[in-house]
Amino acid sequence: MKPNTLPRIAITMGDINGIGPEILAKALAHDAVHTLCTPLVVGSMDALESARAFAPKCPPLSLVRKPDEAAPAGSIAVIDAGLPAPPVVPGKLDAEAGRCAVEWLKAAVQWALNGEIAGIVTCPINKVGIHAAGYTYPGHTEVLGEMCNAPEWRMSLFADRMRIVHVSGHLSLRDALDALTTARIVDSIRTGDEALKRLGLPRRRIGVAGLNPHAGESGAFGLEEQQIIAPAIEHCRAEGIDCHGPCSPDAVFRQAYEGEWDLVVAMYHDQGHIALKMVEMDCGVNVTLGIPIVRTSVDHGTAYDIAGKGVAREDSLLAAIRLAAALGAGQRMAESA
Amino acid sequence: MKPNTLPRIAITMGDINGIGPEILAKALAHDAVHTLCTPLVVGSMDALESARAFAPKCPPLSLVRKPDEAAPAGSIAVIDAGLPAPPVVPGKLDAEAGRCAVEWLKAAVQWALNGEIAGIVTCPINKVGIHAAGYTYPGHTEVLGEMCNAPEWRMSLFADRMRIVHVSGHLSLRDALDALTTARIVDSIRTGDEALKRLGLPRRRIGVAGLNPHAGESGAFGLEEQQIIAPAIEHCRAEGIDCHGPCSPDAVFRQAYEGEWDLVVAMYHDQGHIALKMVEMDCGVNVTLGIPIVRTSVDHGTAYDIAGKGVAREDSLLAAIRLAAALGAGQRMAESA
Repeated sequence: MKPNTLPRIAITMGDINGIGPEILAKALAHDAVHTLCTPLVVGSMDALESARAFAPKCPPLSLVRKPDEAAPAGSIAVIDAGLPAPPVVPGKLDAEAGRCAVEWLKAAVQWALNGEIAGIVTCPINKVGIHAAGYTYPGHTEVLGEMCNAPEWRMSLFADRMRIVHVSGHLSLRDALDALTTARIVDSIRTGDEALKRLGLPRRRIGVAGLNPHAGESGAFGLEEQQIIAPAIEHCRAEGIDCHGPCSPDAVFRQAYEGEWDLVVAMYHDQGHIALKMVEMDCGVNVTLGIPIVRTSVDHGTAYDIAGKGVAREDSLLAAIRLAAALGAGQRMAESA
Repeated sequence: MKPNTLPRIAITMGDINGIGPEILAKALAHDAVHTLCTPLVVGSMDALESARAFAPKCPPLSLVRKPDEAAPAGSIAVIDAGLPAPPVVPGKLDAEAGRCAVEWLKAAVQWALNGEIAGIVTCPINKVGIHAAGYTYPGHTEVLGEMCNAPEWRMSLFADRMRIVHVSGHLSLRDALDALTTARIVDSIRTGDEALKRLGLPRRRIGVAGLNPHAGESGAFGLEEQQIIAPAIEHCRAEGIDCHGPCSPDAVFRQAYEGEWDLVVAMYHDQGHIALKMVEMDCGVNVTLGIPIVRTSVDHGTAYDIAGKGVAREDSLLAAIRLAAALGAGQRMAESA
């Protein structure tokens, strides 16, 4: 372990009454995590300590008061950002737990903006819980977009064999159609290319999905490919980005899975989500691109129904930590270049 | 082989200059085909005879003049419906080949409507070729819809582990949204349930997809689930159909793949196609439902680029024959019940 050269990655605990503490303890029990990054848990020391019962190999915890305060060798730094949590009651919807989840996230975002940490990984929050605490955010990403002053953030899904940037996120399909513009697609392609650069990929071959069946079949089933999508691809190719399309939506994701594309730009939420969830159930990671900080997230919710039972799986969190560490290291290299 | 009890299935050759003849010869070389149905090839004797070079185990051919004319034992009946084809030129776009493809199909449809055959399996045609021959049909299915006087046909995709009925087919995504009505969804659910009955499935559990991300998340991302889809599900449940939803589109297809649903009703073309093509590349079969005859189709095109080279795969045609035989047998049982 070489803590001084590893990126410091904050992992926010999310809702303490969900599976967050358990998957955290289980993930931190993997040696690999500690070879990739120096983790900093942002959340409740008590909740994580209890969850260690499910992960005997999880190193001991050390409470720290500042993100750059080193934990003793072989221990894991935990910081509560001045917000002690209520007692854990697995599966309980609790406004105070919601408040802690949001404020821990906000603290982590601020540290990332200050350069005190290299990236953030978020465990799940409960929307109803944070609304009960008086917030109106629909989710994590809106907090990030607001604090980073980055309304043009992009929801992305990265997995072992597929990476997808979505032109739009949580919009109705009709609103997503209305939001589809050449400028947004150009921005999405650039954002995807930038992420691949950060990951240090030698090849950055991007497939851009069409919108309509068979990518419109030469205009027979829609004109968006010709009028909106193709011009965006041409624009980005002129900038030197290795992007191609519009590709048939029912082919491009499979092609990516088989290695033909390093990233796919999806025209709407479900286009990418349906494809990825068919094949990469346990290793999908949400990445927020188009913001000035690194942020990844598990690809599941609080799972109140199984909280506190010891059966939650840490795969998605592990994947999210791995990716944040890689992006965090890549960003640092880019900044020092 | 018990020819008298097996359903007679017509297999139309499609474009002779594509891979149709080759995949036909290869498929007919499988013993399993002959235990499921009595095949009747509708197309060019010469083209199929040449293609037998790629399939040494394909039985010899016998030209017949009527669909119910039995071929000698151990041979395969071929009928040209009075339309001798031009010579095969692999990969050549040819109006006359296009004309034969359409007229062979029309003959088969008429025989099916007359009850002379139990179902039709179609090999690929080339749209440009049939347009060159003066037809305006976008594809096979429109010929079927017209001849069967069934404008409400449904494009479906059946594979080993997933069956999908689409509420709409080759429409732009925007037109598909406009075409989404409670009546169309009710009709799609009924049509899917009917197909499962024909296949003799003891359980007919149908998942109905939502339209929007997370099935609208209680109205936050669209109201179609509440206003259009849910009423259709309620209506069909009141009729006794075991249907459920609206389900999150990025979950329901995976659930079907894992065995939770026997069929999924997809709200638009790509919702189902993207899902299926991620996991069932070689065994997907197109089924036209909502018409009074059985019709299945391979899930690929003429593949001019590999025509005549001996490298085409017969998997999809085999799957299409299997399914047509099962549906044909099921229909016969239903009629005699």
